[in-house]
Amino acid sequence: MFNWNEETNASRESILQRPAIAMGADIKSATQIIIDQVKDKGDEALLQLAKKFDNVYELELMVSMNDIDQAQEKLSPELKSAIECAYDNIVAFHTMQQPKDIKLETIPGVLCELKYQAIEAVGIYVPGGSAPLPSSVLMQGVLAQLSGAKTVVLATPVKNTETLNPAILYAAKLCGIKTILKSGGAGAIAALAFGTQSVPAVNKIFGPGNAFVTMAKQLVSSQVPGLAIDMPAGPSEVLIIADKRANPDFIAADLLSQAEHGKDSQVILISNASEIIEKTQLALAQQLKTLSRAEIAMAALDNSAYILVDTITQAFEVSAIYGPEHLILQLANCDDYLPLIKNAGSVFVGDYSPESAGDYASGTNHVLPTYGYSKVYSSLNLLDFYRTYTVQTITKQGLTDLSSAILPIAAAEGLDAHAHAVSIRLEKEVC
Amino acid sequence: MFNWNEETNASRESILQRPAIAMGADIKSATQIIIDQVKDKGDEALLQLAKKFDNVYELELMVSMNDIDQAQEKLSPELKSAIECAYDNIVAFHTMQQPKDIKLETIPGVLCELKYQAIEAVGIYVPGGSAPLPSSVLMQGVLAQLSGAKTVVLATPVKNTETLNPAILYAAKLCGIKTILKSGGAGAIAALAFGTQSVPAVNKIFGPGNAFVTMAKQLVSSQVPGLAIDMPAGPSEVLIIADKRANPDFIAADLLSQAEHGKDSQVILISNASEIIEKTQLALAQQLKTLSRAEIAMAALDNSAYILVDTITQAFEVSAIYGPEHLILQLANCDDYLPLIKNAGSVFVGDYSPESAGDYASGTNHVLPTYGYSKVYSSLNLLDFYRTYTVQTITKQGLTDLSSAILPIAAAEGLDAHAHAVSIRLEKEVC
Repeated sequence: MFNWNEETNASRESILQRPAIAMGADIKSATQIIIDQVKDKGDEALLQLAKKFDNVYELELMVSMNDIDQAQEKLSPELKSAIECAYDNIVAFHTMQQPKDIKLETIPGVLCELKYQAIEAVGIYVPGGSAPLPSSVLMQGVLAQLSGAKTVVLATPVKNTETLNPAILYAAKLCGIKTILKSGGAGAIAALAFGTQSVPAVNKIFGPGNAFVTMAKQLVSSQVPGLAIDMPAGPSEVLIIADKRANPDFIAADLLSQAEHGKDSQVILISNASEIIEKTQLALAQQLKTLSRAEIAMAALDNSAYILVDTITQAFEVSAIYGPEHLILQLANCDDYLPLIKNAGSVFVGDYSPESAGDYASGTNHVLPTYGYSKVYSSLNLLDFYRTYTVQTITKQGLTDLSSAILPIAAAEGLDAHAHAVSIRLEKEVC
Repeated sequence: MFNWNEETNASRESILQRPAIAMGADIKSATQIIIDQVKDKGDEALLQLAKKFDNVYELELMVSMNDIDQAQEKLSPELKSAIECAYDNIVAFHTMQQPKDIKLETIPGVLCELKYQAIEAVGIYVPGGSAPLPSSVLMQGVLAQLSGAKTVVLATPVKNTETLNPAILYAAKLCGIKTILKSGGAGAIAALAFGTQSVPAVNKIFGPGNAFVTMAKQLVSSQVPGLAIDMPAGPSEVLIIADKRANPDFIAADLLSQAEHGKDSQVILISNASEIIEKTQLALAQQLKTLSRAEIAMAALDNSAYILVDTITQAFEVSAIYGPEHLILQLANCDDYLPLIKNAGSVFVGDYSPESAGDYASGTNHVLPTYGYSKVYSSLNLLDFYRTYTVQTITKQGLTDLSSAILPIAAAEGLDAHAHAVSIRLEKEVC
């Protein structure tokens, strides 16, 4: 436990320091080789990569519509209805985010519009890892569906088998996804970027992944003009602010639900009550025993930090410096403190709002900025699947009136032709 | 003149090909050296760079409040009121873009919110080049002002003089900017990214610039965790779609107002009437004679393309492939064609809507995606100065009801602790 007010500035910085992301030159060059293979050889390269990394031979790269349609038959009723409930809530909350075009006559005869256009072709990556991630399909696929994107490609790896998990397929089906590539890693990202015989190229690639996926997203977005990616990625993290009446068992459970994500997960607890920190540490030790992923969680806890502050207000200040992906508030009167929230990806308010609610089913998105990017990046939202453009429609009188603004600025900027494009229309030099 | 329907696919691609952006390893390493100097030595490095590149000695790096306040006295009444009119229109149109928080109870007891937070510290770069660019200050500064960003730093170079152009300073004053750094190029970008003794570090850097500025923005955004940049940059470009009743003099004037921006500017005319293309080419030759920047414009016209299509509908198809920064429509019945617009940054509708209206004063933003990025990037808008985050507040009953969605998905994903964080709160294993 650190006492924030007894630490030097340097040690405060080191307490909140995130572990460096391993993204060495070796990862970069290995990733580039895979990208080039897929760019050159398309499907053939994807099949070779599936053999090499995923131990899959004779792979059909694309999932058949039949497989998508029949996936639900392989699900338990509980899981099927859980996916449907999560889908409904995510749809409801993201439907509220539908953008509205804007129209304003700034001066008479000068009509300005801001219009939204769905990004035409989007790629959604869902990592394989140790378990299938249907939630990751929903959190991206619903948004693509609501935007009306013309082309939606889901890419996700298979491991040692040629079929995808039915929960993944059913989530995709609910989202109306018809194009599913059974391929993972840098190869899948390259396929989305350049297209192959089977895979259409997309304009924007979404989704989390390991270091190779992250590196591949960076590389293709800098190599393909007009290609965008969702946001920079880093390890998952949670910061909990708790006061003296908080329940240490709840806090420990939330810290562990973050810690089990991966050995590089970051968990931080800030409290103004040292006994809460101590009790949480005891609860952690106890709850750890019951977890199937205890080893991962324990490794992550090695990077954890427990910080004692003087006041809850100070806890929010420390949180703003860190900028957590997930911020959990277990406080007596949370509402009083909500205006203090800064630089968080998603916030969980009160004793009955665990992070796993937002991870799966409350309706908010679980794709969030990590690694301090919450100071400037947004949690994934429907607008990420749109672009805006502007339109102006000006009458002759409108241009005449506007010319007294345009012409002197064009002159000041030394741009004659800019002025001339106005004056030639007004059949006289206005200025 | 190319006849689109007589060209092969390969030659069509080459007609619409943009010139490669020169971003060699030499530019990258020279830029990195400058960045490192500013990171290490701060103000001292900026002063050295001003001597080396801008021929300025004994420079006060920051503009005094006195200089900002008194700038208007050095402006002609015409220019002063032109800047004010442009400012008012840009404010009006961007005020319409103010975001609204979203709140929805997805199921009873599960309240989800999406909230907007202004990015706290933003940097605005305004290039020096051959003339001062007050319009570039307004197009970025107004948005920073409307967002309520706490820190706004304007960086722009001086050349052979220690004072900034009064039009720049007055535009900054209207936007409420108090921190102005007299420094340009990669050094200024590094100062915004890392901060110096005089310059506060920012979270997001906006603004156009030459190859070194563009490279510096890319490098610092990949080197400073949590730092973002506005959008990828490329040469400016216009595409005009005109029918047989369009005025060739207006078309030529618009092509030239784009061409005078720089030798690498791209201008394209598409028409279904060959006589319009021919008459425009004659008009271009004539209007060129009168321009002070004729040499630049002529060089840019060397990259221009004149494309004959069968129908106006086909012209929109070609435009969507190219994805122009500016799209000008000089058509008899523009309104019929507006639904065909795709992949454009800003659109100018009808005979009296020249690009220079949007460049300066209509109210729309002139910072637009170039180089084909209009397929996926937005024109600069107020939301670029905000980030979103989500908040969920769940009651015990809400969590109980939601648990039937959370627990089966957590089980399917093999994440015990996620499930446990729910069940421990409900004091029983729900699933």
